[in-house]
Amino acid sequence: MRAHRVPDVLISVTALVLIGGSGRGEEAPAPPNFVVVFADDLGYGDLGSFGHPVIRTPNLDQLAAEGQRWTSFYVASSVCTPSRAALLTGRYPVRSGMTSTRRRVLFPDSGGGLPSSEVTIAEALAPAGYVSGAFGKWHLGHLPRFLPTRQGFVTYWGIPYSNDMDFERGPDYRQQTQTDARFQADPVHYRVPILADEREIERPADQHTITRRYTEKALDFIRAHRDRPFFLYLAHSMVHIPLFASRDFVGRSPAGIYGDAVREIDWSVGRIVDLLRELGLHRHTLVVFTSDNGPWREFATHGGSAGPLRGGKGDTFEGGVREPTIFWGPGIVSPRVVREMGSTLDLLPTLCALAGVDPPRDRMLDGHDLGPVLGGEERSPREEMFFYRGEEIYAVRVGPWKAHFVTRSGYGPDAPVAHDPPLLYQLEEDPSERIDVGARHPEVIARIRDRVAAHRRTLVPVPNQLEIPLPR
Amino acid sequence: MRAHRVPDVLISVTALVLIGGSGRGEEAPAPPNFVVVFADDLGYGDLGSFGHPVIRTPNLDQLAAEGQRWTSFYVASSVCTPSRAALLTGRYPVRSGMTSTRRRVLFPDSGGGLPSSEVTIAEALAPAGYVSGAFGKWHLGHLPRFLPTRQGFVTYWGIPYSNDMDFERGPDYRQQTQTDARFQADPVHYRVPILADEREIERPADQHTITRRYTEKALDFIRAHRDRPFFLYLAHSMVHIPLFASRDFVGRSPAGIYGDAVREIDWSVGRIVDLLRELGLHRHTLVVFTSDNGPWREFATHGGSAGPLRGGKGDTFEGGVREPTIFWGPGIVSPRVVREMGSTLDLLPTLCALAGVDPPRDRMLDGHDLGPVLGGEERSPREEMFFYRGEEIYAVRVGPWKAHFVTRSGYGPDAPVAHDPPLLYQLEEDPSERIDVGARHPEVIARIRDRVAAHRRTLVPVPNQLEIPLPR
Repeated sequence: MRAHRVPDVLISVTALVLIGGSGRGEEAPAPPNFVVVFADDLGYGDLGSFGHPVIRTPNLDQLAAEGQRWTSFYVASSVCTPSRAALLTGRYPVRSGMTSTRRRVLFPDSGGGLPSSEVTIAEALAPAGYVSGAFGKWHLGHLPRFLPTRQGFVTYWGIPYSNDMDFERGPDYRQQTQTDARFQADPVHYRVPILADEREIERPADQHTITRRYTEKALDFIRAHRDRPFFLYLAHSMVHIPLFASRDFVGRSPAGIYGDAVREIDWSVGRIVDLLRELGLHRHTLVVFTSDNGPWREFATHGGSAGPLRGGKGDTFEGGVREPTIFWGPGIVSPRVVREMGSTLDLLPTLCALAGVDPPRDRMLDGHDLGPVLGGEERSPREEMFFYRGEEIYAVRVGPWKAHFVTRSGYGPDAPVAHDPPLLYQLEEDPSERIDVGARHPEVIARIRDRVAAHRRTLVPVPNQLEIPLPR
Repeated sequence: MRAHRVPDVLISVTALVLIGGSGRGEEAPAPPNFVVVFADDLGYGDLGSFGHPVIRTPNLDQLAAEGQRWTSFYVASSVCTPSRAALLTGRYPVRSGMTSTRRRVLFPDSGGGLPSSEVTIAEALAPAGYVSGAFGKWHLGHLPRFLPTRQGFVTYWGIPYSNDMDFERGPDYRQQTQTDARFQADPVHYRVPILADEREIERPADQHTITRRYTEKALDFIRAHRDRPFFLYLAHSMVHIPLFASRDFVGRSPAGIYGDAVREIDWSVGRIVDLLRELGLHRHTLVVFTSDNGPWREFATHGGSAGPLRGGKGDTFEGGVREPTIFWGPGIVSPRVVREMGSTLDLLPTLCALAGVDPPRDRMLDGHDLGPVLGGEERSPREEMFFYRGEEIYAVRVGPWKAHFVTRSGYGPDAPVAHDPPLLYQLEEDPSERIDVGARHPEVIARIRDRVAAHRRTLVPVPNQLEIPLPR
């Protein structure tokens, strides 16, 4: 087995806890490594194991078969910036000021970012001797004081915001994708930079090779830190438009460039797992795969599929917020399909518990420790999920019931529509949100209103980070 | 190994062919058994292995993992009677008179049925010594001269037409399902009979236990004919409304009675495979699972899900005609996901080839031998598929392209809409049929028109069986 270099005091504390708990004197097991792979704009229906009829994802499907495939796993926002803030902090983004109704995400002209007072997974794991690396899209503030290197990560390599920002000139991507499914974006039109730690090293980023390069950096990070517990956060910028794939992948999928880009992400996951096996770390590493929000369907064949779910990126229907999620780790994850609820909000508490460290105690957390479910327990501790648009609660799921107080299409000109009483769907019988049963279940609606009121009481006003302009 | 009792002359002929072909003197292998399980109104998205987020189908998923999961497998009609005629004859139903634009299926007041001049799979396999049994829903004519026992099957047990026909009285099922997802049908309102061979033995059929009873009859058939090659055609009447499940299954699925009924079909498949293993027949039996048409979405939670596909039962979009299909047989089927086209039209030629008998040579067949694909070949021989509504061609798939010349919702009051030029979808990039690319691909449309013209030249007028009234 591998030996972790962990501060002695920590080993002693953990060992004491174990001795106390089991009455036996085993040595403390080394805490596991964590790999979180976060795709961008990938739809619920875009993996083979989640029912895509065309796109092949053999590596991810293999992990799903050997681990846990979660069919009701949620992000905390259906757009990028708030979803990422929620994953890394275990808190609804309204608590960190990382969500806004007016400006839904951060832009190159934004001056805000994830406040340094927030505790990221990387920071929470540090006391247990973890080293953390971030690769790929950040989108939690591009000014130096907001970068990963200031949020607990020892290294970073990637793009600071979305790959379609800093659009310069050339044909209108959206117009082209509507009419030509084989349109391939010209990278020169996009001027997003690549940062290494805090330094701009390339502009515009060559996005053709970006998935491959993120992967190589991630593999280097694993090799470099094989002897201590690590947290690898690999946030691919694909399959957010404009779409690109490396030369080896372009034209390989019959589903076009979207399929090519998904396949390259699948390849990337396969390479990481291969390396974990090669280094003997596979029995001691938890790999999590999910995405930041649903598919951007407005981009036609350059957007993904929510499969059977209604809606997509930007809205609060299931297609916007339910993500194809896989937990894998032969020594940690008991194989099965999990139909109970989970969320990216739960990653921080789950990883902390597996690492044997306390999550932050001085603030409201919205996550639950999913460790027992990973180990084989039937019931998930997550019983409710609030779906925000900006600072407003649009929808709530409690058990199988989902109430929509406000609905609005993800993108497009239409205004919000308020519903009183709310629309009510029973998601286990009606996963596609087609049949409003609110009129027959006023008691459910009353119960959900109580949950919303209780949740609202936990909120405290904070400065909105997404509306802060760049300092001049 | 088991010994089949096959006429000596056949063994000699097959042996000679093998000797001639291979130059070696092996004994002819016994022809394999065939089990075709045909669900009713099951949607493309209704199995776990095809992406359903709630319904559990562990037995079918296991077969899918051990065998072939086909993601582009089509029926020849999106309603019941013509779809069944196509499966059993390997011919578009327009060739047998088993499709009608005015009356889409057979009813209790129909006097027609599958003409005795048609050759069913059961009849085609008979020369190789096969014994065939039919269990479940027939729907190819309920007058004695059209029953399974007159079409090559030695035995039959099931209902002669749909389980919602002979509706007598009581609440309007459709109205109730719209408002109460947990509505359970009262079997007394449905007066469909059960026939044993050609004799009515029960009326109304107790539909609560019907899936279990079909299964028991099928198991008895396998036990009785374990020593010779058999063809078992098990056509479940679930999950066609009204929905029922046995006591062991009611309330078991969080997806309601629809999920319960799917789970009982899954159980049924599991029992059949268990028995095949128990009798040592599993290495010598091909099991095929599919459904007759897409989900009847008008029945809300009592209808299924087409997953990512557009449309459903009764229409010619993918949701109406593409079915969740599994081929399993450890000695016959090479495990993989098959994304190429196949069809129920191909079953007759495929089973004939595996059995070593000629399909009928005196008539136009529309099927291809899928045996090479089952054995591991990449390319399917099926390159095109015509989608009829009644006697009219509404849509055509050629390779990845699908042209819609006419569209119309499956049920409901709206009239057919003609498209000239046709709508054109590229199904590999756009499996949900969202983006009409016809304007950019006139050459594809021209090619498809040629295929339609060539197909039309093979049609000859026949009497329409669905419009014949009951003799008085």
